[in-house]
Parts: sequence; structure tokens; C-alpha cells
Amino acid sequence: MKEIRSVKNNKIKELRKLQQRKYRNQAESYLLEGYHLVEEAVNAHAAVQEVYLDERGLQLWQNWVEEHQLDYYFFSDEVMNALSDLPTPQGIVALVKKEEEKPANFSGKWLLLDNVQDPGNVGTIVRTADAAGFDGVFLGAGSADRYSSKVLRSMQGSQFHLPVLSGDVKKVISEIKRIGSKVYGTQLDPAALSYKQVEKHSSFALILGNEGQGVDEEILQLTDQNLYIPIYGAAESLNVGVAAGILMYALI
Amino acid sequence: MKEIRSVKNNKIKELRKLQQRKYRNQAESYLLEGYHLVEEAVNAHAAVQEVYLDERGLQLWQNWVEEHQLDYYFFSDEVMNALSDLPTPQGIVALVKKEEEKPANFSGKWLLLDNVQDPGNVGTIVRTADAAGFDGVFLGAGSADRYSSKVLRSMQGSQFHLPVLSGDVKKVISEIKRIGSKVYGTQLDPAALSYKQVEKHSSFALILGNEGQGVDEEILQLTDQNLYIPIYGAAESLNVGVAAGILMYALI
Repeated sequence: MKEIRSVKNNKIKELRKLQQRKYRNQAESYLLEGYHLVEEAVNAHAAVQEVYLDERGLQLWQNWVEEHQLDYYFFSDEVMNALSDLPTPQGIVALVKKEEEKPANFSGKWLLLDNVQDPGNVGTIVRTADAAGFDGVFLGAGSADRYSSKVLRSMQGSQFHLPVLSGDVKKVISEIKRIGSKVYGTQLDPAALSYKQVEKHSSFALILGNEGQGVDEEILQLTDQNLYIPIYGAAESLNVGVAAGILMYALI
Repeated sequence: MKEIRSVKNNKIKELRKLQQRKYRNQAESYLLEGYHLVEEAVNAHAAVQEVYLDERGLQLWQNWVEEHQLDYYFFSDEVMNALSDLPTPQGIVALVKKEEEKPANFSGKWLLLDNVQDPGNVGTIVRTADAAGFDGVFLGAGSADRYSSKVLRSMQGSQFHLPVLSGDVKKVISEIKRIGSKVYGTQLDPAALSYKQVEKHSSFALILGNEGQGVDEEILQLTDQNLYIPIYGAAESLNVGVAAGILMYALI
């Protein structure tokens, strides 16, 4: 078993760089923390390159790691603390190769995110889309990186259950319209259509937008309809993750 | 104008203690950060004791603070950084006296939280309850402190729009049943009643529970019905804040 006990070790320095988006993009890999998530990655045949275990991790999961013939290292607590962004590391971290995004045909139910910046919101929305039986999530420009530790944590493994793609929202909207699906924007504007008035369709796309500004004006021009969630009290708006949940469950 | 430029100043030491729940309880006061929230507090006639402004805060809000005859201090950036738990302080912090919780009659629509621990979840749920026109939120044992900075931030001022009370959930349930309102628990169990099957009532209580364990078994025994949100995909569960949003908007 390979061991690393110093945070000054070159391998650790390289791994810690993966806490930043630009290095994840360069290396085309990311860190995934916690047994539940690593197990999901292995079950989903994601490209798990190596696994890192601390003292507690070894006790709990060394057998599991060996059974799955995963290449693994022992890391001291100090090293694991440096790698984890949690106050209490989970004992197990995997180095995973990013998956190539396979082109999708966008039939069925899709959720599109325009500039949703908070990692917790992005992760929660992917998890909700999974629960609601959506066919995929598309992350447009400005959205939090799906490989950041916070997004990974809030997705709770849902990225292994449905495709999560990224790119240009406008292009995807025209593709979705081309195949005959409805496209719904969302708007914090009582003049828009209440989501309760929308007919159900088996194939559609729903767009949620930035926490402060909502969906970009240009994008709202491209939709079939823009939906509104009525506010009955004195709150100015809903959290975007909550709004996504209300709409997804109402439209399916 | 009073100025404080050292984090070693005794007043600053005392104020920083308010970052901890036990000191907030002792002092019966809390810190509220950001102009939007301080403005809401003032408009709601909350007991704003003092206001602290940094260089930028002075430029933007000194006039506003003087117009409202608020007692204020200038804090150097270093002092403001020590007081704020944000990477970029908002320029204005208020010291606010906790409000006495007025006894409620629990008629109308109430949301009850049992052991919801994450501050972001508690805050988001209060904000959603406000948006959905609920009459109040009741925080049971184990729930995050409504005066913690993260809860305050995610509530976005909704605590000034509807009562947020705390205490024993079981007592409140019997009180709510006594006045003839329905009480709905929530359960991650397909054998429970789908929320889509529930008749609408103008007066009811909805209980959401802990992020991992859900609503306590003993509490679930006390409800009229326990509701379930169907999971159509492979996710194990929904985020509690999202689940609360879906249910509140479906039941109103």
C-alpha cells in the first residue's frame, strides 16, 4: 500500500490544485469525497483513477476498495484535511476522470440553467431533476462548475443517474424547438403566465436563471412561454432551487 | 461619530461573541448584516440598537442612518472583517434586540420544523413560507438558530413578514388539532399518501423534518396524515427546502 504523510509531497500539491476549476479543466479530472458518492461513481462505471483513504477510511472501506480492484493510497489525517474542504473529512476521496459529454437529442424533459452561480443551488437542482424523473440538465454560461466539491456534494450522486451537459443555452433552445418540444422560461413578473395554467407535455424544457437577475432577457425572447410562480406573501422572490422544484413537480 | 479601529477593542470582543448561539441567548441580541436586511428591520420596527458602518457603508448609508435617528459607529475595514462572516462584508451591520415571541393561535397555515439543522435550509424554508402566504413558521427542537448569520441571510427578511416561533413541536400539534386544523407530517415512504391526493384546507399545519432522518417517528404518530412526494428517478430523496417548497405551493 502506498502511503503519503506529508502535505508537501508533490502528488498532494498536484491533487490540491484540483480544488480550482482551471486545474480541473486542465487535468480533466476532479476529486469526489465520501463513500456514498465514490460508490455511486464505481457503480456507474465512472473513470475512478485512484482512491485515497485515511486511518478511518482504511478500516471501513479497504476491503471494498480491494474488491473493486481500485488503485489506492493511505493518506495521513493531515494530508486528508488538506485535500478535503469539509471541517470533518469523510475518510475517502477518489480521483475521477471527467466524462466526455455525449451529445444528447434533448427529447423528454430537460432543465436548463442560465447563469445559476451558487454551487449549492446547482447541485440541489440536479438532485431534484433526478427525483422528478427529468431526462437531463444543461448548464449554460455562468453556472457553477459541476465538478466543484460543493456542487458534487449537493448533487448527492444524481449526476450518475441523468446526463448533466454544459454549453450554450441559446443553441440548445433552438435544438429543442426543432424537435417540437415546448420551451418554458421563468420570470419574476406577475404579467407572465402562472405555472398553474400550463398544460402538461411529455417533452419540454424549463429554464431557470441567475439568483439575482433571473433568466437573461435575450433568452426569454426565445421561449414558447415564460412562467411565473405567484408570491402570496411579502417575500420578493423564491430561492432558485426551490422555484425549480415547485415548477418541475408541477409540470411533470 | 464614534469610531473603532482595533479588533482588540472591548466592544468588538463583545460583539464578536454574538457569532455564537449561547452568547446571543445570553445577550438577547444578534447581528444583522447588509443594507436590505437592516432596512427591513427598521421598517418592521425591530429593536435596532446600534448600526456599524465601514468606509463604504458611511458613503452609502450615513444619511439614511441619521434620518432614522439610529445610533451609529464607524468601524475600520479590519474591524468589519472580524465582525462579518462573509468574504466581502456588506458595509453595514446592525445590533438588534431579539424580539419576544408572542403567543400565536396557530390558525391559518403553519409550517413546523422538526430538527432541521442546516441554517441555509431553515432560512430558505422561512422565505418560501412567506412567499406562499403562510401564517407562520414554528422551529422545533434541534433546528438551526433563527438568529445565526446564515439563517438570517437565507431568510432575506421574511422573519419580519411572518411570525417565526420556537419551542416544542408536540405541544403545538395538539394545540393545532384542538382548534380543528389538519396536521400533515411528511414521510419518505411510498406507502404514505401522495401530496397530490390531499384536499385543500384553509387552515393546516405541515411538518418537515431532519435532513437525514426526516420527521421523528413519535411526531408522525400525532399527525392526521403523513404525506409523500413521489420520486420518479433514481435520487434517494429531495433536499428538505425543496420538499417544503413543493408541498407548501401544492397545499395552499
